[in-house]
Amino acid sequence: MSSSNASRRNEASRRAILTAAFELVQEVGYAKLSIESIAARAGVGKQTIYRWWPSKGAVLFDAFLLMLGEQADTGEPALPDTGDLEADLKTVLRATIEELNDPRYDEPMRALNTEIVHDPALAALYSERLDGPMREMKKRRLRSAQRAGQLAEDLDLDVAVEMVWGPLLNRWLQRSGALTPEYADSLVETALSGLRPRH
Amino acid sequence: MSSSNASRRNEASRRAILTAAFELVQEVGYAKLSIESIAARAGVGKQTIYRWWPSKGAVLFDAFLLMLGEQADTGEPALPDTGDLEADLKTVLRATIEELNDPRYDEPMRALNTEIVHDPALAALYSERLDGPMREMKKRRLRSAQRAGQLAEDLDLDVAVEMVWGPLLNRWLQRSGALTPEYADSLVETALSGLRPRH
Repeated sequence: MSSSNASRRNEASRRAILTAAFELVQEVGYAKLSIESIAARAGVGKQTIYRWWPSKGAVLFDAFLLMLGEQADTGEPALPDTGDLEADLKTVLRATIEELNDPRYDEPMRALNTEIVHDPALAALYSERLDGPMREMKKRRLRSAQRAGQLAEDLDLDVAVEMVWGPLLNRWLQRSGALTPEYADSLVETALSGLRPRH
Repeated sequence: MSSSNASRRNEASRRAILTAAFELVQEVGYAKLSIESIAARAGVGKQTIYRWWPSKGAVLFDAFLLMLGEQADTGEPALPDTGDLEADLKTVLRATIEELNDPRYDEPMRALNTEIVHDPALAALYSERLDGPMREMKKRRLRSAQRAGQLAEDLDLDVAVEMVWGPLLNRWLQRSGALTPEYADSLVETALSGLRPRH
């Protein structure tokens, strides 16, 4: 077998494993997801999976990155920037809510979000490869608004990102309220204006 | 055995079980916590635990309530209300941060917060007995400020609660930044003033 054939076969196995993990976690939930079941569904040996990933959490994480990459295969990721920050943030949060309400993503995303709470190594990977780049992307959009005078000059952009996106993430994880387009709008308006009266 | 003796013994067993669960989750983490190990530590049979609780998540939840109850055994819970909302919220968030940084509570609280993500029955219990009452307590403080003209009249108080407390919860769960007193202050100031400039 030539080395390019081997690499093609490896790539095919890798995709089969990640696709199997992503399907299985939707079907049986994260607690019952096992390396055995992923291997069986993907048609590979368990050892193949253990050679490439240290844990089922790590497999799921890569499955997640693959899925996100195929969704948004369009160069440098960026939030919309029409010059109207409020409208742009509403667009983004409404789209996020649609995704969170999609049963195909719900269970895998829950699994990822809880796994990182208990697994510091996975949390570091998550921060480096997923949360970090997404946070940068959000901060770029806020920085552009700040330069345009639409955000307070002394604003801590990390706190600002957490204030717009944090409540949504919590409401979804804790199921503590409805995730509707109106909620997205209310969140953006409240974060931008603040809790105090504006006169 | 008289029925009052039996009830005292039941209460003693219940406390032993909950204390064992709370200690063990700190020592071994939630994933390795088992009904067997709780029973062994508490000196009771496994069946005693299964008779009273449907899952280890439910045991841990009651252990948590017991611990919180002993901390704050002072009647109707309420947030401080000195008339200065900003100062009061900073006091509360700084205290919360101290608690989240306490290694005795870190692991049990992480376990509870992730368990409810996957267990809708436990999430309902959590919402009814813990999150709901705490949310009401927070809303009472905000409503008092709203009546005093310190908060916008049309503010959605649920969104307001999520905006003040949500980012802190996320930063702790995801370990995405330092939990310092300065962060508490910045969070409160940003939520109250909003991201837009105030003139």
